[in-house]
Amino acid sequence: MKRDDLPPATGWTLARRAERMNPSVIRDLLKVTERPGIISFGGGLPSPRTFPVAAFAEACERVLRDDGPGALQYASSEGYGPLREAIAARLPWKVDPSQVLVTTGSQQGLDLVAKVMIDTGSRVLVETPTYLGALQAFAPMEPEAVGVASDGEGIDVADVARQRGDARFLYVLPNFQNPTGRTMSETRRQALVHVARATALPIVEDNPYGDLWFDAPPPAPLTARNPEGSIYLGSFSKVLAPGLRLGYIVAPAAVAPKLLQAKQAADLHSPSFNQRLVVEVLRDGFLDRHVPTIRALYKAQRDAMLAALQREMQDLDVRWNAPDGGMFLWVRLPAGMDAMALLPKAVERNVAYVPGSAFYAGEADHRTLRLSFVTASQEQIATGIAALATTIRENLPVRPC
Amino acid sequence: MKRDDLPPATGWTLARRAERMNPSVIRDLLKVTERPGIISFGGGLPSPRTFPVAAFAEACERVLRDDGPGALQYASSEGYGPLREAIAARLPWKVDPSQVLVTTGSQQGLDLVAKVMIDTGSRVLVETPTYLGALQAFAPMEPEAVGVASDGEGIDVADVARQRGDARFLYVLPNFQNPTGRTMSETRRQALVHVARATALPIVEDNPYGDLWFDAPPPAPLTARNPEGSIYLGSFSKVLAPGLRLGYIVAPAAVAPKLLQAKQAADLHSPSFNQRLVVEVLRDGFLDRHVPTIRALYKAQRDAMLAALQREMQDLDVRWNAPDGGMFLWVRLPAGMDAMALLPKAVERNVAYVPGSAFYAGEADHRTLRLSFVTASQEQIATGIAALATTIRENLPVRPC
Repeated sequence: MKRDDLPPATGWTLARRAERMNPSVIRDLLKVTERPGIISFGGGLPSPRTFPVAAFAEACERVLRDDGPGALQYASSEGYGPLREAIAARLPWKVDPSQVLVTTGSQQGLDLVAKVMIDTGSRVLVETPTYLGALQAFAPMEPEAVGVASDGEGIDVADVARQRGDARFLYVLPNFQNPTGRTMSETRRQALVHVARATALPIVEDNPYGDLWFDAPPPAPLTARNPEGSIYLGSFSKVLAPGLRLGYIVAPAAVAPKLLQAKQAADLHSPSFNQRLVVEVLRDGFLDRHVPTIRALYKAQRDAMLAALQREMQDLDVRWNAPDGGMFLWVRLPAGMDAMALLPKAVERNVAYVPGSAFYAGEADHRTLRLSFVTASQEQIATGIAALATTIRENLPVRPC
Repeated sequence: MKRDDLPPATGWTLARRAERMNPSVIRDLLKVTERPGIISFGGGLPSPRTFPVAAFAEACERVLRDDGPGALQYASSEGYGPLREAIAARLPWKVDPSQVLVTTGSQQGLDLVAKVMIDTGSRVLVETPTYLGALQAFAPMEPEAVGVASDGEGIDVADVARQRGDARFLYVLPNFQNPTGRTMSETRRQALVHVARATALPIVEDNPYGDLWFDAPPPAPLTARNPEGSIYLGSFSKVLAPGLRLGYIVAPAAVAPKLLQAKQAADLHSPSFNQRLVVEVLRDGFLDRHVPTIRALYKAQRDAMLAALQREMQDLDVRWNAPDGGMFLWVRLPAGMDAMALLPKAVERNVAYVPGSAFYAGEADHRTLRLSFVTASQEQIATGIAALATTIRENLPVRPC
């Protein structure tokens, strides 16, 4: 039988959910802006200067010398015991290591939560704006994602109560949020936990940036206040290195077994070698010495960006916030401008950012954009913000007299 | 406000699919059989003697020295370019590196295929029996999994045609199948590809064991014969080490973009550090020298198990096959016996296996069980098979006179 005797198979019928999967706007933008000479404030990449390369080199040597075959073998879906213990020990509320599920980055945590909690059409509450990666992780399970009103202090708790309905959960990123950089205030947290408990609304709390505070730690996590009503997602991507793909979930008994089963079906387990590396690197309080160096660097970077914004844009009707930690700040362009439409013009001037519209579950504010202050150098920040100011100035809408 | 003023949140409503997620029988069994003194033929663990620990140690050193920060940074969802090139170059048909998607183990490949191809109730054809992990990966998308008749040569092609219906795809593992160890013959492959093309039935071909042949390579992959109608899943778990969690998908243009988007939403990308390690280890034809040592070891292990079975069970009405490669062989107990019911008695005699019933999409053959011949030593194989024979002998059903 020759292959060509028959027509080619044309039987690909995709799942309905595949229609909802779309390329990440950010991802495609970043490809454009990777070309040499562009100063990009777009990507959410930690500064590679913060990666403890020497500590990892030592850890690789020790792990492979002490039990190489064990480190390279299949392992349990829950995660490596000593890593689960280290994670539980660092969290600021009482967590038993058995509650910790190691994930392939905290992005996988979102995928598992979606699988276990979302049916087609399930109502899911998110902040306005919210983390794009969460919207993408939830999308394959076809929820109805509903944006709750939010301001500089975080989510509007009265609107949570109004929108609660039969929502399966509320997804929040309280510390130095991606994309806005904002932090939920203590008052807001208390009120939110009150409403969540009063209305039995589960909370999915995502906290990848919480350790990256500049002057003072953020208020206690929501999960610490209501552990039986919350799922907590954490990550090593911002305090050690994202290339290891290690995060974790802390979940109450009501959902933990199903999350574990979903994890097993998704990738059997997260890389055992990487888990052992992190345990080695974490020894002797490494993070207590290492994380302050990241904080100091990122604070200086934030200050450089705030200074540049002040210097270059004070005469423009541009608004921005001053985040207390993390990696991002949030900018609103003058009335009549559209950050997506402006981007190609900015790229012509060799500066890039992420338009804010990608981060909205509902109607987007097209004047917004996200700037990362951690990847570019301070010199690049000065140059790039000046170029962005010029771009804005050149494209200001003509106002009617 | 005190925490205890309000009732605890009890609002956990799980997705309907969570009901379909159940703990892996194998996984729970393995926990029992991990206790010291048990000779386990249960787990699908490659022999740790085959893991190239020294090569990984060198690779860690080189990767971190040459570009540590790059290796620890976020990376593209498609995978590391040089790894995609190395994968494409090793495959026995023309594959462009752009068609290769690196996955977090080939288990993740199954998860992504399920997300992109399966709607609730979608018909999916599988072998009888089939890989349990595939059933688990598909289950969250709630397919109707239909077992197609199969024999020692693989799937029954006439039954594929009969059962085709509106199936979204046929999932097959043609080489040294998990759980049976059987290999699909060349005649069967030609016939299957003919039917697949004639009925436009997409094939998902899983090939984690194909390199582990003992005397001669298996026939060419199905995908090589019909690349536009097939998705191919591969893995480094059996030829390098499973603890890295690296596999890959090769997919045609009809589905590749959606698989990539599902991948991005699932975990952003597979660990960049691990991908670079594998590229380093693969240099200079490493696998061409390394894989033959695995083949030789596993062949000797298979021979030891076949000899032990012949020695210990020839007087019993027990049937087994003689796989041409891979890690497993398949046993059928005497009439009237149940492998699941027998297991606790085997464990009392310090030997364990996996009952075959877990591997069936439809009605199970409860007399079957899976034996791995690669994890236990040859001495343990002799002892364990003798213990298993004793267990069978002691539990033979009483035949009516």
